[in-house]
Amino acid sequence: MNRNLVRYVLGFVLIILSLMLLLPVIVAFIYRENDWKYFLLISGACGLVGGISSQFKPKNSQMLIKEGFISCALTWILMSIIGCLPFVISGQIPNFTNALFETVSGFTTTGATILGTDRQIEDLSHSMLFWRSFTNWAGGMGILVFILAVVSQLSGQSNMHLMKAESPGPVVSKLIPKLKNTAVLLYVMYFVMSFIEFILLIIGKMPLFDAITVTFSTAGTGGFSVLNEGIMAYNGNYYQQAVITAFMVLFGVNFSVYYLLICRKFSQIFKFEELRWYLIIYAAAVAAIGLNLTFGSNIYTSKLDIWHHAAFQVATYISSTGFATQDFDKWPEFSKAVLLLVAFIGACAGSTGGGLKVSRVIILWRSAIKSLKTLLHPNSVVTVKMDGKTVKEDVIRSTSVYFSIFILVFMCSVLLISLDNMDFTTNFTAVLATLNNMGPGLNLVGPTRNFYEYSDFSKYVLIFDMLAGRLELLPMLMLFEPFVWKKKL
Amino acid sequence: MNRNLVRYVLGFVLIILSLMLLLPVIVAFIYRENDWKYFLLISGACGLVGGISSQFKPKNSQMLIKEGFISCALTWILMSIIGCLPFVISGQIPNFTNALFETVSGFTTTGATILGTDRQIEDLSHSMLFWRSFTNWAGGMGILVFILAVVSQLSGQSNMHLMKAESPGPVVSKLIPKLKNTAVLLYVMYFVMSFIEFILLIIGKMPLFDAITVTFSTAGTGGFSVLNEGIMAYNGNYYQQAVITAFMVLFGVNFSVYYLLICRKFSQIFKFEELRWYLIIYAAAVAAIGLNLTFGSNIYTSKLDIWHHAAFQVATYISSTGFATQDFDKWPEFSKAVLLLVAFIGACAGSTGGGLKVSRVIILWRSAIKSLKTLLHPNSVVTVKMDGKTVKEDVIRSTSVYFSIFILVFMCSVLLISLDNMDFTTNFTAVLATLNNMGPGLNLVGPTRNFYEYSDFSKYVLIFDMLAGRLELLPMLMLFEPFVWKKKL
Repeated sequence: MNRNLVRYVLGFVLIILSLMLLLPVIVAFIYRENDWKYFLLISGACGLVGGISSQFKPKNSQMLIKEGFISCALTWILMSIIGCLPFVISGQIPNFTNALFETVSGFTTTGATILGTDRQIEDLSHSMLFWRSFTNWAGGMGILVFILAVVSQLSGQSNMHLMKAESPGPVVSKLIPKLKNTAVLLYVMYFVMSFIEFILLIIGKMPLFDAITVTFSTAGTGGFSVLNEGIMAYNGNYYQQAVITAFMVLFGVNFSVYYLLICRKFSQIFKFEELRWYLIIYAAAVAAIGLNLTFGSNIYTSKLDIWHHAAFQVATYISSTGFATQDFDKWPEFSKAVLLLVAFIGACAGSTGGGLKVSRVIILWRSAIKSLKTLLHPNSVVTVKMDGKTVKEDVIRSTSVYFSIFILVFMCSVLLISLDNMDFTTNFTAVLATLNNMGPGLNLVGPTRNFYEYSDFSKYVLIFDMLAGRLELLPMLMLFEPFVWKKKL
Repeated sequence: MNRNLVRYVLGFVLIILSLMLLLPVIVAFIYRENDWKYFLLISGACGLVGGISSQFKPKNSQMLIKEGFISCALTWILMSIIGCLPFVISGQIPNFTNALFETVSGFTTTGATILGTDRQIEDLSHSMLFWRSFTNWAGGMGILVFILAVVSQLSGQSNMHLMKAESPGPVVSKLIPKLKNTAVLLYVMYFVMSFIEFILLIIGKMPLFDAITVTFSTAGTGGFSVLNEGIMAYNGNYYQQAVITAFMVLFGVNFSVYYLLICRKFSQIFKFEELRWYLIIYAAAVAAIGLNLTFGSNIYTSKLDIWHHAAFQVATYISSTGFATQDFDKWPEFSKAVLLLVAFIGACAGSTGGGLKVSRVIILWRSAIKSLKTLLHPNSVVTVKMDGKTVKEDVIRSTSVYFSIFILVFMCSVLLISLDNMDFTTNFTAVLATLNNMGPGLNLVGPTRNFYEYSDFSKYVLIFDMLAGRLELLPMLMLFEPFVWKKKL
């Protein structure tokens, strides 16, 4: 492996982190909090090391898949470790493991928290809460995509592997031929959509600080909140919740759709099968839960309540955001099973959402049908199609393999955290919530509880799951492959 | 589809059923029970219809995959419906759905029961209990394999598809060139091994009737017992339990291994990777649970108890038998997670055990590794090997697809039975226990409980899962494919 190139990329990551850490400094000044010094100190250190590193360009800057994936995995580990330092140094989350869990949960847009037991969310200062929510936003579109957008030294076509490693979905396509412009465009769309949500929340009379942080969490489909009560606070304002519902669904859509919208290529949007199925699954799940709450329970008396909360909760699970307007752990079992299922399926490829991704489910489903047909008619040629095009054989194979590894990681994680002797539902949904970057699970990790009770060992297992879920397994698994680390192959 | 051929095969199934139903008639005479008339009546009816049907040979007796798979699915549905009639007509299990559940559970070697709530197992007569346990034995090796062994009209090579549809594993190979002789050999080995276990249990002073029925359930890896207490009865005789442990492990081994043993081809046995991994997984799981019970709980004080019960319980789960010497629902969560994991992996292909099968896990694992290597070195040629031979590309693909469909059926089943509003652990393990043909799950379907509480709808979902698990999905799924039913394609 070209270690020098990886070091070079990580240098730019440090520079970007250094700039990002200046934002909470501003917040600290506004709220006259003392925490500015911690952020400034870490920002300075990052800037210094990153600045020096970026001066030494590697001789060979040709990036292969290996370097791309390893850079990506190390980037996310590095930024998580640095990102958790303000919490630790300031003493607001003094335990390193807890602070790391919280930061990984932020960057990976999971939204699972360890706050709420020994320390409340409200115990954190504004600048810390801002930083915590900002990790959701930064992690949503991805930090490497951001670097590709702004660092001209990394604009070579071979850096496509960096984007591939960080962007979710079975296939990553560039919107426009030039890599750098694609990255810029993605971030512009991301920023504009976030801004629109922010304005709509302000119109709905949400306090300014809350509107900013809620927007961060919605856009990144993260799910962090600045209040212990989460979105249940704000006096249960239905307008605000409806805005959030809509944007959770929107941020779960492949960003290519918005690009096509900008280009006014409406006919191509209708051909987008993943979008169609994403909306169908969303509508079907809302209908199933709505009917279940109507006929299978008496928690709600008003029809508006039922459909409002069903629409919100399915949106938060399918987009893997993880907000909660209700303690859905008290909902009937069927509704909970529907929520777990949509969380498992997840959002669209190329969105900020997590989970298996709708396009993978489509490919898996169609290749199963194909296999059945081939079995019956061995001589016929059956192909798997999506969006009117034949899906390549290697995409089908890698999707199947992805699915197998996903389930394997899932089972091993449940096994390992079972050592803490919590009940099966808690363990199963804790892994589901972290590996799919969703946030809350059921029972002891339900929407009114948190992940504090798990042992340090289990927290590291779940930290691995969050990173593996966000980076879609391969970059994280490659870290454990000895031959990747050899200097020359 | 060649419906006439399917009808012809089903005719022989009826004849075999008619003969099988004579066995409990003998038991009824021995115990001077009145139930002989029910068995004789149904046996007579089956013999009559089957006898007539077998007189009309179809013009075209060439069996394609389609006919093989559909015949297999219909055979299992037919024998389940007929097999449950004695329970219903005699009034010993008057509810048809319950009786059908119990019979499907028997033939598919699941061993999940609805007895123990409104009716106790001991309420059934000896002849009914004999029939119930005999379904475990008959279902273990498979009724179509039996038909191929004894019905010379169906000895054509094209009937291989019947065997393929009924035998578990990713690849079905004939032990010896002639199909009929392979089937005879399989049943001879099955009978001899069962007989040895029976003798060993008799030496261990188990009552005759119990020794016969326990042997039926162990050999078929079914798990039915003639006592409500199950294997916990018999005063906790450790010798008997050790015999059962050994035979559960042995019946989970690919029968090809025993054929190689008979032929004294010992070197080939050592090359059998599936056998090696099956034993490694077994030993690792026993070790994990043994250590967990030693250091993570104080249920047992004696080391013998710990390792004895760990060895027994892992054997019963990996072979999908489902016996219980202990209420393992009270074991620590890690031990329970290990049990669920080995149940999911299951036994060897070509055994009477259920689950995903060890060989499939090996193929999935190696194709994942292969995929990782191919990603890193796109131009290198990496193949998946097993037993020193290259695994064919279509076997890898069908294994991946099998796995995807398995998880899909799993999730849909959990979703559907959640409508009964039982807790998630109960629903999840109920599906795991039925789809893997294991038997008991956890919580409300744990080893001291049963499946009685589920609604009729859920019971039919679980009946489907048991059949789909035993026949490895495809035959059952084909029933729902409209184009299969067309007369001509």
